[in-house]
Amino acid sequence: MAYTLRELADAVGATLRGKGEAEIDAVAPLDRAGPRHVAYCAQARYRGLIAKSQAGALILHPDDGDVFPGNRLLCDDPRGAFARIARLLHPPGAIEPGRHPSAVIHESADVADSASVGPHAVIEAHARVGHRVFIGPGAVVGEGCVVGAGTRIEARAVIMRDCVIGERCVISPGAVIGGEGFGYARDAQGRWLKVPQLGRVVIGNDVDIGANTTIDRGALGDTVIADGVKLDNLIQIAHNVQVGEHTAMAGCVGVAGSAVIGKRCLIAGGAGIMGHITVGDDVEVTAMSFLKSSVTGPGRYSSSLPAADADLWARNLGRFRHLDELARRLRRVEHMIKQILSGGRH
Amino acid sequence: MAYTLRELADAVGATLRGKGEAEIDAVAPLDRAGPRHVAYCAQARYRGLIAKSQAGALILHPDDGDVFPGNRLLCDDPRGAFARIARLLHPPGAIEPGRHPSAVIHESADVADSASVGPHAVIEAHARVGHRVFIGPGAVVGEGCVVGAGTRIEARAVIMRDCVIGERCVISPGAVIGGEGFGYARDAQGRWLKVPQLGRVVIGNDVDIGANTTIDRGALGDTVIADGVKLDNLIQIAHNVQVGEHTAMAGCVGVAGSAVIGKRCLIAGGAGIMGHITVGDDVEVTAMSFLKSSVTGPGRYSSSLPAADADLWARNLGRFRHLDELARRLRRVEHMIKQILSGGRH
Amino acid sequence: MAYTLRELADAVGATLRGKGEAEIDAVAPLDRAGPRHVAYCAQARYRGLIAKSQAGALILHPDDGDVFPGNRLLCDDPRGAFARIARLLHPPGAIEPGRHPSAVIHESADVADSASVGPHAVIEAHARVGHRVFIGPGAVVGEGCVVGAGTRIEARAVIMRDCVIGERCVISPGAVIGGEGFGYARDAQGRWLKVPQLGRVVIGNDVDIGANTTIDRGALGDTVIADGVKLDNLIQIAHNVQVGEHTAMAGCVGVAGSAVIGKRCLIAGGAGIMGHITVGDDVEVTAMSFLKSSVTGPGRYSSSLPAADADLWARNLGRFRHLDELARRLRRVEHMIKQILSGGRH
Repeated sequence: MAYTLRELADAVGATLRGKGEAEIDAVAPLDRAGPRHVAYCAQARYRGLIAKSQAGALILHPDDGDVFPGNRLLCDDPRGAFARIARLLHPPGAIEPGRHPSAVIHESADVADSASVGPHAVIEAHARVGHRVFIGPGAVVGEGCVVGAGTRIEARAVIMRDCVIGERCVISPGAVIGGEGFGYARDAQGRWLKVPQLGRVVIGNDVDIGANTTIDRGALGDTVIADGVKLDNLIQIAHNVQVGEHTAMAGCVGVAGSAVIGKRCLIAGGAGIMGHITVGDDVEVTAMSFLKSSVTGPGRYSSSLPAADADLWARNLGRFRHLDELARRLRRVEHMIKQILSGGRH
Repeated sequence: MAYTLRELADAVGATLRGKGEAEIDAVAPLDRAGPRHVAYCAQARYRGLIAKSQAGALILHPDDGDVFPGNRLLCDDPRGAFARIARLLHPPGAIEPGRHPSAVIHESADVADSASVGPHAVIEAHARVGHRVFIGPGAVVGEGCVVGAGTRIEARAVIMRDCVIGERCVISPGAVIGGEGFGYARDAQGRWLKVPQLGRVVIGNDVDIGANTTIDRGALGDTVIADGVKLDNLIQIAHNVQVGEHTAMAGCVGVAGSAVIGKRCLIAGGAGIMGHITVGDDVEVTAMSFLKSSVTGPGRYSSSLPAADADLWARNLGRFRHLDELARRLRRVEHMIKQILSGGRH
Repeated sequence: MAYTLRELADAVGATLRGKGEAEIDAVAPLDRAGPRHVAYCAQARYRGLIAKSQAGALILHPDDGDVFPGNRLLCDDPRGAFARIARLLHPPGAIEPGRHPSAVIHESADVADSASVGPHAVIEAHARVGHRVFIGPGAVVGEGCVVGAGTRIEARAVIMRDCVIGERCVISPGAVIGGEGFGYARDAQGRWLKVPQLGRVVIGNDVDIGANTTIDRGALGDTVIADGVKLDNLIQIAHNVQVGEHTAMAGCVGVAGSAVIGKRCLIAGGAGIMGHITVGDDVEVTAMSFLKSSVTGPGRYSSSLPAADADLWARNLGRFRHLDELARRLRRVEHMIKQILSGGRH
């Protein structure tokens, strides 16, 4: 599907420099794009590649506009323009309505004719599957679940009973939505008694859930993922958690039970969020950090420890283990100097 | 299923204050319970909600008994009583015995008539599946596996060959029990030669395994999960690990190979346990900590780093990188002061 | 399958001490081996078990050769020899060629007659599945995928469209290869616009991928896993990452987008690798560490924090929060001592 450069410029509101009639077939990386490709540069670290690019056109910030002699689309947000152009040039394949004969669909389930149900998929009793929903091979939609129009439940994802998924969501392969929350009471002998997990998972519209990510159902109320949230792979969301609109979390994040996370937060990879805390809107947590207490937003929080040469690390760590003692020694030194200066001791 | 308050009080041995004939249908959260609901309060942080609760009855510690004017069930362990009452009011659904026609069950497998085998489940040769076992949609029970009575193997969980699962366990969706251990020998060129993983995973009774959690089979001996252990989602248990009775681990914990963990331990979310170490009974490890060496129990161990404002964090981290140097400077200062005080230098 | 000790010694080039005609059936652990078993010792921590071993033969380093009175196979790399002997004594079961009638194989897929396709497996259009490939129960091979000869795609693993898997690989149960990369552009209101993920995952030969591990497809180029790489369970590899030959990663590692990792690296459990960085060959990262910046190899990098008694940890952590202030106070003290010594202040 080819577009002229002028069509692309108009579609994203960019300023065109160069030949508007040039045809573009595809997007490509800056350093591998050819004459019928469009590429972009939005990160300073890759700016050195601009001048040498063989791309048919580049999407650039006006500040970088002079670096490239070829066709350019200039705009304030090159990455955003690139995303929209990439979606024009590479639209998602249309889904094929129908039900694979090997799919097992309960007679009480309500599945739209426009939905696509793949081989070995299972749709349980009373589930409702909306228009143009894609149910991938081996996916399971549990009893009483609701899946909104245009959503994709990818291969082998599992939605457990009574959960609600909004419209235009993507539930990636292997994700588990609505597993039992981890709730137990402990007796005097240390044995665990399971607390029934009676809530659901309720997911809004335009939410993406990554591969093998797990979101547990609520204990009493629901676990709630608001509109526009994006979760990467291998994330754990515990029972009763609430995640606000347009918040994004990168891979391997863990959120403990009953945490309430605000809107537009950015939780970087490997971070952990303590249970029962409240995180304000527009809070950023850096990679591998542990947010242990409630914070108001906006703000940026970190406990990232960048790796160093292992020997140096070991030496500093050895000191860290005696940091309390070191601080006490410093206090003593300060006190003695004070006495020296006052002439009181020598 | 309604109970009177007196029936509930008797069932859990609580002291009844109020109308014993009041009928209760369901459990609910403290702040959303209505007149036919029972709620509880066991955490100080939620105590402020007691007085305003609209619940038909509250389960409270005797110390909180006067705060609420309505019906009360007083007991020393409100959470435990709540768990037992919730199980009375919300019993798990009965499983429907039978085999879905799409399930693939090897002719040599021994599956109890009272078991329920869901759509697209696979039960391989010589597997033994006990009374009232639930095998969810798409679950796989490998060759020679044994699954004890009353256990649930949820949707798409996989039990690989020869593993043993006890009675009344729950293996959550997507969990993988008995994958190959990560064992290799390295040659002089840095290439890896796989060491056959010949052991099994042996899981006791009343064990819960979370969604997408993985437990690898032993290399020579078995990986062993003892009775009553509770593992949350996305946990990795490597080959040859032993986990003692009633130990609980929260989400995203990783346990490296051949670690031996005692009874009644509590491993909080995101923690890592080093391989080949021994952890005593009743050891607690805090969230996101790294237990690197053997410890005896009981005890509480931590290397949690709570996130701080990112700028402050960066400043302290900058100092940390020079901590060894800082400690040497302090020592020099102490030495100089000693000399000053002894009159030896000035 | 029994071998004589002489046959085993010849197969691995070890020096035989003892009865070459002794028959060995199986490998076993040092402390549980019997007269028809062979065991090994390669770690100092287990050396104390050698003398008491009841094994029919031990594989030992020549330095340990005198400790054991029985049959010995002496060699410089006991673990490597053990791996090869274990593979002789315990060869993997032969796969049974054929297609289970419940498997759904698209008519345009090209599946070798020697391949084994399990129950409820799904092979989509135009996929190519090579000789002696094993496709486990419920596994999904997406449209246009290529799976090389001798590879195992275990139960419920998912390979998404157009990905390439080399020869003799093992893709463990529940792994997801080729999920969508986590790529979005953010608009002025903080909403996310998905960037189409147009690349593939390309996996070389002799690669092992652990259970429930996820590897995302590239955004523009491919995500590349080179020959001989070994990835443990629950690892996240983000889009565009490149992992060099024979690199190994233990469980729960996360690698962020576009990181380039060299050959023969060792990434220990729970470590995180920052996006867009370059890691040289032969780099080792210790457990639970966060490699945030590019490093050249060889080298060993760490930010591991071993857990300590929780009270002691809390005290040191309290000091850490004021480390910048503490460093300033030390500087002031040094300055004052300098003045004292110069006689300038008192």
